[in-house]
Amino acid sequence: MSDPFVVVGADAAGLSAASKFRREAPDREVVVFERGRWISYAYCGMPYFIEGRVERMSNLLSLSPSEVDERGIDLRRGHEVVAVDPDGTTVTVETADGDSFAQPYDDLLVATGGRATTGRFDVRGLDGAFTLHDMDAAAAIDAYIAEPDAYDPNRADVSAVDRERVDRNAAMPAPETAAIVGGGYVGVEMAEALVGRGLDVHLFHRSAHLLSDFGEAVGERVATELEANGVTVHTNAPVEELVGDGRLRGIAFGGADGSETLPVDMAIVGVGIRPNTELLDGTGVELGEGGAIATDDHGRTNLPDVYAAGDCATARHAVTGEPAWMPLGLTANRAGRAIGATVAGDPSPVGDIAGTAAVKAFEMEAGRVGLVEDEAARDAGFDPVSETVTAGSRSGYYPGAAPTDVTLVADRDSGRLIGGTVVGPDRAAIRIDTLATALEADMTVPEVERLDLAYAPPFSPVWDPILVAAKVLNGTLDGE
Amino acid sequence: MSDPFVVVGADAAGLSAASKFRREAPDREVVVFERGRWISYAYCGMPYFIEGRVERMSNLLSLSPSEVDERGIDLRRGHEVVAVDPDGTTVTVETADGDSFAQPYDDLLVATGGRATTGRFDVRGLDGAFTLHDMDAAAAIDAYIAEPDAYDPNRADVSAVDRERVDRNAAMPAPETAAIVGGGYVGVEMAEALVGRGLDVHLFHRSAHLLSDFGEAVGERVATELEANGVTVHTNAPVEELVGDGRLRGIAFGGADGSETLPVDMAIVGVGIRPNTELLDGTGVELGEGGAIATDDHGRTNLPDVYAAGDCATARHAVTGEPAWMPLGLTANRAGRAIGATVAGDPSPVGDIAGTAAVKAFEMEAGRVGLVEDEAARDAGFDPVSETVTAGSRSGYYPGAAPTDVTLVADRDSGRLIGGTVVGPDRAAIRIDTLATALEADMTVPEVERLDLAYAPPFSPVWDPILVAAKVLNGTLDGE
Repeated sequence: MSDPFVVVGADAAGLSAASKFRREAPDREVVVFERGRWISYAYCGMPYFIEGRVERMSNLLSLSPSEVDERGIDLRRGHEVVAVDPDGTTVTVETADGDSFAQPYDDLLVATGGRATTGRFDVRGLDGAFTLHDMDAAAAIDAYIAEPDAYDPNRADVSAVDRERVDRNAAMPAPETAAIVGGGYVGVEMAEALVGRGLDVHLFHRSAHLLSDFGEAVGERVATELEANGVTVHTNAPVEELVGDGRLRGIAFGGADGSETLPVDMAIVGVGIRPNTELLDGTGVELGEGGAIATDDHGRTNLPDVYAAGDCATARHAVTGEPAWMPLGLTANRAGRAIGATVAGDPSPVGDIAGTAAVKAFEMEAGRVGLVEDEAARDAGFDPVSETVTAGSRSGYYPGAAPTDVTLVADRDSGRLIGGTVVGPDRAAIRIDTLATALEADMTVPEVERLDLAYAPPFSPVWDPILVAAKVLNGTLDGE
Repeated sequence: MSDPFVVVGADAAGLSAASKFRREAPDREVVVFERGRWISYAYCGMPYFIEGRVERMSNLLSLSPSEVDERGIDLRRGHEVVAVDPDGTTVTVETADGDSFAQPYDDLLVATGGRATTGRFDVRGLDGAFTLHDMDAAAAIDAYIAEPDAYDPNRADVSAVDRERVDRNAAMPAPETAAIVGGGYVGVEMAEALVGRGLDVHLFHRSAHLLSDFGEAVGERVATELEANGVTVHTNAPVEELVGDGRLRGIAFGGADGSETLPVDMAIVGVGIRPNTELLDGTGVELGEGGAIATDDHGRTNLPDVYAAGDCATARHAVTGEPAWMPLGLTANRAGRAIGATVAGDPSPVGDIAGTAAVKAFEMEAGRVGLVEDEAARDAGFDPVSETVTAGSRSGYYPGAAPTDVTLVADRDSGRLIGGTVVGPDRAAIRIDTLATALEADMTVPEVERLDLAYAPPFSPVWDPILVAAKVLNGTLDGE
C-alpha cells in the first residue's frame, strides 16, 4: 500500500472515484491524470449552451481544478497516460511539455470515456462541419453560428478553451442552413438548439424512425414535434457525403428518389460514440459489448488491480443480467463512486444499468428503459410482446391534459416487464422512472397494473397512462 | 344464478364493478341502485370547477346515465337501499316516489362511499357555510361566490343539480372573505380555488403543519406557497365556532393568544370524511379501520356473497400488510373493477394500497406514499429512520431547476423503504410514483440508491433527488 490509486481521466467516473476514495481513505494518495485541459464538464449540457439557454460555458463545469485540489486530489492536467504495464503495476505518462515518466500504482482506474465517431465523414478537414465531441467543439460551434461582429467571447469563459479555434470559427460568415447527420439524442437536441439560434435545420436519419433506441412510438412523435417547430426531418435518408473543399457546401444523401444534394453551410455529425480503450491495447485486457472494456460487478477488469468505469466500460444490464455498453452520465458517476469506495477498502458493487434515458425535443419529452426493440429482446432470449397506448396525462377536464403514449414490452412466458417508453408533452419523461423501478424490481406486468400510482387531476388521471398500458398488455398476454 | 348482481351506489367503485361484470358476464343481470340523482362524477375535480379552471359541471361527469344504459347496466337513480338481509339474500329498496320493494341478489356490492364530516360545526343551518360534500355542494358554492347579477347558470349544466339550492345561493350577496376550516387536501385545494375567484382567504389548521399526512417538509413548503399567493395561513389554530345566525358572520378560533373572532362571509369546512356503513347496521357485518367495512383481498365482507369497495371499505396496506382505510379514487375504481371480475367468475384480487397521493397548491406540487409519520410507522411495528434532502429538479445550469425536497422513511433493522414524500414546483408530484413502485416492490434503501433513474438536464440532474435522498438515508442507516 505504498503506491497511489491512479486514475486516468478527470471526468464523471474518474473524479467521482477520486473524490469518494479521498473521503473514505483520507491518508492515502490518489493521482488523476487528464490528457487535456478540461475536467468534470457536463457533456449533456452542451446542446443547451449552444442553444443559448445556458449563458456561459463555465456553467457546465461541475468542479474546477482548484476545487479538486481542495479535496486533496493530485490532479495533473496535460498528462496523457500512454501505456499500462499490469505486471509492473506502472503506467507511462507523457506530459504536454514532452516529458515522460513511469508512475507506479496500487490500483488503477481507467476512465478514459468515449469519443464521437464521424463514420465515413471527413469532419476535421471542412470548416462548418463539426461533431459535438467535447467542450472545445461546443465552443467552436457556438462561435461559428454567431455573426462575426456579434460573437460574445465571454460565452466561452473557461481558460481551458481552445481560443484559437474559437476565434477562427467566430470570424467565419454565420451559417444559414444546417444539416444534422444522425437522429439520435445528440441530433434531436442539436436540432432544437440550432432552431433556437435561428438556423434553417435539416435532420437526416438513416432509418425510418428517429431515436431508434426509443422505439417507433417515440420516434414518430418526436419527428412530428421537430417538424412542427420548423425542422425538416429526412428519414430513410442516409447521408453519403459532406460536400465541400476546405469549407462545407452541401450534404449528399440518398432516399427513395436516389441521391440528391442539399446546399448547407453547417453540419453536425452525431452518428455515435466509441469507447476509448486504446490505452490498454496489448495488455491482454478483455473487451466486451461495443468494444468497451469488460468489467465485473465491482468494475474490475480481468487485469489485476485495474478497474474501468464510465463510457469506456461495460456494465451489467438489469434485465438481461449480461454485460452491456450504454454510455450514460449516471452510470459513469455511480460506477466511479463505487470503485472509489472499493479501492478504499469498502467493496461496493457498481450497480446494474437499466438503460434508462430521457430526451427533450422542444415541448416533447420522452423516456426509455430496458429492452424496447423486438430484436434486442429476442437476442437476450426473451419472447417479447408489446403494446402502445395513448392516454391522458391529467384528468380529462383539467387544462393541460395531453396525450401520452406508453409502450410496455414484456416477456410472453413469464409476463415480466422487460422494457418501456413514455412520450408526451406533459411531464412524460420523468414517468420513465416508474418503469425503471418496476423493471429493476423484476415486476411482472400484472404487478405493474396493480401499482398504487398517484391520482390528482393536475398530474394524473385516475388510471395513470402506465396503468392503462399495463392493463392493455395484460389483456394481450392473457390472449384476449 | 337466477338473481342479479346488485350494486349499491353508482360512483367510482359501483359503476366500475357493474361495467366490468357486464363485459365479463354479458348474459347475466346487474342492477345498480343510487339513492341520489348524481352518478360517476369526479369528486377530486370539484375544487377546479369552483376555481373556474373547469368551465362546466358536466365536464366532471365520467359517465352519463344513458351511457350506463348502453353498457347494459340496469341503473336506478332515486332508489335508496335501506336494508340488507344477508340470510334472505335480499335488499330493501325505497324509491324517491315513496315505494318500497325487496330485491333478491346473487351477489351484493356495497359501494356507498363516504361523506364529508362537519365535526362540531353547524354547516347546514348557516348560509355561507359549506362542506365540499358532493356536486350539489360544489354548484351551491360556485353560485354563492358569484355576484348575483353575474352568475352564469350554465356553469351547473347538469339536470341532476339541485337548482333551487343553486338559485338561492346565487341570489345572496357575493362574499369577500372566506375561511377554510382544515388544512388537508380539500382545504389546500379550496384555498387556491377561492383565491382564483378573488376572495380574501384564511386557512385554519388545528396543528402545526398543513397536510399532516404528507409530513412536515411538505406542510411547510405548501404553507409558504399559499402565503406567497395571498392566503393567510393560521396554524395551531383550532376553529371553535362558526359564528352567525342564519347567515355566517365570523370564525371563532383559538391560538397562542386565546380565542379570537375573524369576520368572514364564507366558510368551507373540510375536516375529514367518514365511511357510509349505516346500511349494514344490524347485519353482523365486521367493521375495521376508520369504521369502514372490513374486506379481504378480494373485497369480500364477512357476510356471504356481500362485497364492499371504495370509500366505505378497508383495503390492505402494501407496507404493513394490514387493513387500512384510505378513501382515494384509484382504490375505488380498481377494487370495483376487480370485484366485477370476481363476481363474473374470474377471481381477481383488489390489490394493495400504498397510500399514494398527490396535491397541488398553486405552483407547488407534492406527493406522499406509505408510512410518512413516525407514529404511524411505529404503530405498524417499524423502527422508523428518516432523512429529508433538498436537491435540484434539473441540472443546475438548466433554467427552471428548482429545489425539490425528498423525505424517505426506512425501517432501521431491515433497511426497507416504508414511506416517502416529494415536494417542489418542478415535476415533483409525479416523482412519487417512483417511490410508490419501490415501496410496493419491498425495496431497501440501498436498492433505491442503486436505481438507474433517468438523467437529462431538462428533467433531472445526474443524481435524481430521490437518489440523493437514498444516499443520505443510507449514510444514516450505516451509522455515518
